[in-house]
Amino acid sequence: MVRFLVLYPQPADVGAFQRHYYDVHVPLAKKLPGLRSYTLSRDAAAIRGQQPYYLVAELDWDDIASLRRDFASPIGQETARDAGILAEMCPGMHSMVFELEPQ
Amino acid sequence: MVRFLVLYPQPADVGAFQRHYYDVHVPLAKKLPGLRSYTLSRDAAAIRGQQPYYLVAELDWDDIASLRRDFASPIGQETARDAGILAEMCPGMHSMVFELEPQ
Repeated sequence: MVRFLVLYPQPADVGAFQRHYYDVHVPLAKKLPGLRSYTLSRDAAAIRGQQPYYLVAELDWDDIASLRRDFASPIGQETARDAGILAEMCPGMHSMVFELEPQ
Repeated sequence: MVRFLVLYPQPADVGAFQRHYYDVHVPLAKKLPGLRSYTLSRDAAAIRGQQPYYLVAELDWDDIASLRRDFASPIGQETARDAGILAEMCPGMHSMVFELEPQ
């Protein structure tokens, strides 16, 4: 399983960010055919080290090949472009991709 | 589902961190009775915003009550103390807890 993790600090305009996120970004991302699970967390509590994030998004694919295939498609490119709009609304947003190794 | 996410930047002494993490921390955390899943990711690739982390750990519980119960127990307190040792070995480590909302 491969996870795309996105950490959003508090946006400058919460209402505008929220509308764009739920009305535009979620429907777009949910069109990605290889997406296996998509969770959002709006209640992150910092345990150690820094301020809590405003929003944590986790999107899972079976493997890195299917994630790459999805982001090379027209809908994937549109989703990535839209993530750029979200990043501008939410300075300090950062994201990463990693493979899960169950312990 | 409630997730405990820990993000570790590159430790100063990778070998010492790795030994402590795998030989002490993983066996301790796995004794927590409510722990439902524990994944590690050693290959995080930064997509946007900052340097990749050295290690990403995700530990899941059914709900916040069972997470709290586990961390109030002697083994949970030992695990939390041990996380403090890891944090000292890995400055900039940060962690958070959040509830997953499937989309």
